Amino acid sequence: MKAKVHVTLKNGVLDPQGKAVGHALESLGFSGVKDVRIGRFIEVELDETDAAKAKEAAESMCRKLLANTVIENFSVEVG
Amino acid sequence: MKAKVHVTLKNGVLDPQGKAVGHALESLGFSGVKDVRIGRFIEVELDETDAAKAKEAAESMCRKLLANTVIENFSVEVG
Repeated sequence: MKAKVHVTLKNGVLDPQGKAVGHALESLGFSGVKDVRIGRFIEVELDETDAAKAKEAAESMCRKLLANTVIENFSVEVG
Repeated sequence: MKAKVHVTLKNGVLDPQGKAVGHALESLGFSGVKDVRIGRFIEVELDETDAAKAKEAAESMCRKLLANTVIENFSVEVG
């Protein structure tokens, strides 16, 4: 079973990497770019076959390792 | 209009970061982790109000800057 995890910065947390990408896009001639935020997309392949248990395990992984919950949000989809 | 971009490594491309995270998860006591792949999740806020044009612009951004199309795939959702 595959868990798809999105880890994104919380609102209000500065994203210098996103700002840099935004400026680079402008330099390349893309106009109308208001904001860029960069997060991580993590795919975890699990042996678990029960969707609820797999989701629970993935959420636990996020809290313990994959996300820094002080500054980041995470969401988990299983399927 | 917000474009949500997923950038993932192509199949067959080694992902040492993902391997390291997989081993770290095992060390933390998570069993049954078969594989971990790490990609980027990029949110681009655009002035454009036409969904088709916004998607086209975001795909062009991917080809020119956001993704390395030699080793990475990208997908764009607009909404």
